[in-house]
Amino acid sequence: MAHNKSYTLGEIASLLNLKLVGDGQCVINGIGTLKSASSGQLSFLSNPAYIDQLGACQASAVIVEEKHAEAFVSNVLISSSPYVSFAEATALFDDSPEPESGVHASAYVNDAVDLPDSVSIGANAVVEAGVIIGENCVIGPGCYLGNKAKLGSNCYLHSNVSLYHRVAIGNNAIIHSGAVIGADGFGFAFDGEKSVKIRQLGSVKIGDDVEIGACTTIDRGALEDTVICDGVKIDNQVQIGHNVTIGQHSVICGCAGVSGSVTIGKYCVLGGASGTVGHISIADKVRVSAMSLVSESITEPGTYSSGTWHMKTSQWKRSNIRFQQLDSITKRLKELEKSTDKN
Amino acid sequence: MAHNKSYTLGEIASLLNLKLVGDGQCVINGIGTLKSASSGQLSFLSNPAYIDQLGACQASAVIVEEKHAEAFVSNVLISSSPYVSFAEATALFDDSPEPESGVHASAYVNDAVDLPDSVSIGANAVVEAGVIIGENCVIGPGCYLGNKAKLGSNCYLHSNVSLYHRVAIGNNAIIHSGAVIGADGFGFAFDGEKSVKIRQLGSVKIGDDVEIGACTTIDRGALEDTVICDGVKIDNQVQIGHNVTIGQHSVICGCAGVSGSVTIGKYCVLGGASGTVGHISIADKVRVSAMSLVSESITEPGTYSSGTWHMKTSQWKRSNIRFQQLDSITKRLKELEKSTDKN
Amino acid sequence: MAHNKSYTLGEIASLLNLKLVGDGQCVINGIGTLKSASSGQLSFLSNPAYIDQLGACQASAVIVEEKHAEAFVSNVLISSSPYVSFAEATALFDDSPEPESGVHASAYVNDAVDLPDSVSIGANAVVEAGVIIGENCVIGPGCYLGNKAKLGSNCYLHSNVSLYHRVAIGNNAIIHSGAVIGADGFGFAFDGEKSVKIRQLGSVKIGDDVEIGACTTIDRGALEDTVICDGVKIDNQVQIGHNVTIGQHSVICGCAGVSGSVTIGKYCVLGGASGTVGHISIADKVRVSAMSLVSESITEPGTYSSGTWHMKTSQWKRSNIRFQQLDSITKRLKELEKSTDKN
Repeated sequence: MAHNKSYTLGEIASLLNLKLVGDGQCVINGIGTLKSASSGQLSFLSNPAYIDQLGACQASAVIVEEKHAEAFVSNVLISSSPYVSFAEATALFDDSPEPESGVHASAYVNDAVDLPDSVSIGANAVVEAGVIIGENCVIGPGCYLGNKAKLGSNCYLHSNVSLYHRVAIGNNAIIHSGAVIGADGFGFAFDGEKSVKIRQLGSVKIGDDVEIGACTTIDRGALEDTVICDGVKIDNQVQIGHNVTIGQHSVICGCAGVSGSVTIGKYCVLGGASGTVGHISIADKVRVSAMSLVSESITEPGTYSSGTWHMKTSQWKRSNIRFQQLDSITKRLKELEKSTDKN
Repeated sequence: MAHNKSYTLGEIASLLNLKLVGDGQCVINGIGTLKSASSGQLSFLSNPAYIDQLGACQASAVIVEEKHAEAFVSNVLISSSPYVSFAEATALFDDSPEPESGVHASAYVNDAVDLPDSVSIGANAVVEAGVIIGENCVIGPGCYLGNKAKLGSNCYLHSNVSLYHRVAIGNNAIIHSGAVIGADGFGFAFDGEKSVKIRQLGSVKIGDDVEIGACTTIDRGALEDTVICDGVKIDNQVQIGHNVTIGQHSVICGCAGVSGSVTIGKYCVLGGASGTVGHISIADKVRVSAMSLVSESITEPGTYSSGTWHMKTSQWKRSNIRFQQLDSITKRLKELEKSTDKN
Repeated sequence: MAHNKSYTLGEIASLLNLKLVGDGQCVINGIGTLKSASSGQLSFLSNPAYIDQLGACQASAVIVEEKHAEAFVSNVLISSSPYVSFAEATALFDDSPEPESGVHASAYVNDAVDLPDSVSIGANAVVEAGVIIGENCVIGPGCYLGNKAKLGSNCYLHSNVSLYHRVAIGNNAIIHSGAVIGADGFGFAFDGEKSVKIRQLGSVKIGDDVEIGACTTIDRGALEDTVICDGVKIDNQVQIGHNVTIGQHSVICGCAGVSGSVTIGKYCVLGGASGTVGHISIADKVRVSAMSLVSESITEPGTYSSGTWHMKTSQWKRSNIRFQQLDSITKRLKELEKSTDKN
């Protein structure tokens, strides 16, 4: 971690609205885990399983729950939710560059586009006709905003993001490099000899406070829009098919794939590299574990999985041979039950 | 769906070569599903399972098979294949921007490249020496065409596509943003201490009428070319390894991965996030279901799957414990059969 | 394969440090497999299983082990490791374009950046303040190098690569198009209503001799760095989560996903589309087969797999029904064993 920001503990307590027990003048210049934090750094205890690490922790201050306030010998900041307070603290030490507002000389912005003064357009970015950009947006170098694409306020597009025409995004979006929003959904009608393209006439509509990872792709709808609701967080390399709806505050982990016309509820979590077949619905508060395939609609909250655990390959091969015979094995068992029953 | 195109029903019947039963002067300004279409829109019945939706359908006209012509109270267009006619109809209402021909002032085109007047080169695109581009191609903003890359006529490259040197693409290609064609295949010789790079001396050769999705990658061959045949359709985030051949009109769904030196036949469908091990062959007309791994060559047409269905995680864990014991469980069954047999 | 380089066999023997048996004046203008090589080409026998192909091989020379020197009728180059010698030979015939040094007129390089004369900056590339680039680096067209990003010597970034701020890369890196290094790790603290972003204050640190595939993403660490050690080779479309460490000379195949805070040892191979859950460790010299999920730490070298083999879908469905019943099936077996035992 490299940065050059520092605060007194009193300032941090005030900024994060936490109760300080200790020295308000203590200077904090970074954040570390309980194990790695050094003097001058702030740490946090969110999982009580780690409480034993407080003893050897070198941090100058630790964010803890009230009930653990006495477990650390030095300064503590008391929070009802130390992990959330830690998340807020990271914002104080973020040294990400803040691009200047204005249009870089090498960018191309269509003449008819009316940009707020607060907007920053990076080098070699391209903004087509009809685009609307809200206050304080940053459009990174090499980004492409197609005709009539629309961004709310405070959006941050990192380098080389592509938005197709008419894609609409709310406020406070963060979109990482290489993401592509609004490419054609994958739709064809097979005429017996070849695939006839179904033009994708819908678009993509994204709510407020959405984050989209690097190289993630979200396709435009066929007739209606693909919809990503407020607060959804999407990791890298995720594929969202056309006409998908993802409910508020759901979280989609890296490499997941959501097939076309799937509806996902609120507060769901799709694990890394998980996926769904098309045209199904998933209820609110469903969690799907890593690399699992949702093979039909899920109507009740809960945690779901598919696949098998890893094994030594030699043992796994033996299990696989048996998996292929599993129906006949079960029938043999049934026969045996019958014959034993007769006895 | 937003657009500003409209046609009379008579015009549509004529353009799609369909028989009209009803009012040829009826104005159509869009397309909708049976459920969502409103007055002024065209709909279609392709799956007879939905015939009951015709009753409440608000569309001004519906594309149907002849035998269903009387099932809708208003105007109908009669097609032997309503889904294909629907696909053709979407082209009439496509409002995608049509870039002007010419080279954008901010693009870089090598001086020695001879471009047809009909070609459009977008802002900040880069066209290297020796590139050949056919009539009516659109090269989107931020695209990169490496040395001696070759495009046929009527190709459309969306923004930020990368073509490496010598990649050759036929006519009518559509390539979506972020796709990378011709990067090095993944080949190394391990010398006992480190991986020695095998330079990838082949290229990628793509036929006519191929569509390639956003952030899809197709690697160049090691000694010979990677080959994508006519009419192949590839979705987003697909990885095609070096020296792969994909036969005509096959369809590769999102997030699929085809390992190196695999040969896939004609008219295959690889489901979403499916994959193959390397150096195998897949026959014509094979369908692989979502998230399935093809673990050896497939010699007969048909549908193939791997993996397990999703379950509640608690139940799934119990099945997994047993899966690990499956060989010994089967042996226990065999023992029991033997001992019962003796009785 | 298209190129215009040729060598005498004597030159090749000298360049690769191999013993030649045959005509040193024989001209070689390319490389082919035993099956496809034509006159004028060089081939190689690395897998003794293919020794029978030497009989019909049309190559003008073949690289073989000493013990196979007499199995080919024409010229041979003798190598203790023909596959490694073949890899070295490919470098002789590589016709990839070599960009000129200098900064392209359309690139943007921050005024304060001091570039070695040997560096090539491609068209429309963007180099931000504080960037450090070593000797003989090539920065491809459309690349983005964020603030204080650092490259060693002899690095080659293909087109449209994005490096976020402070990413540090060693010598001899090859990074393919569309790769994104240093985007935010996926970290949020859930406050009961919404996800609060954890700013990712770490960076990515990459050693020497690393290759990174097209559209691969490597996230920056939360508090500390994500670390990729010397000699690691990463294929296309791979996702590396935050705070991952990958040990020296490990190989990560296409579409694999490594979850956050995973530590992978040296000389490991993760197969295509394989993955890991988060916060685990994998020992040195572990091989994970294609599309397998590592569901807990692996402490011993060896080969590991998960999932099931592909089957005809109809048969697979029957196995899946039984998989869901597997715990109760096993209990039925146990009951039967008990009752048979009593008998």
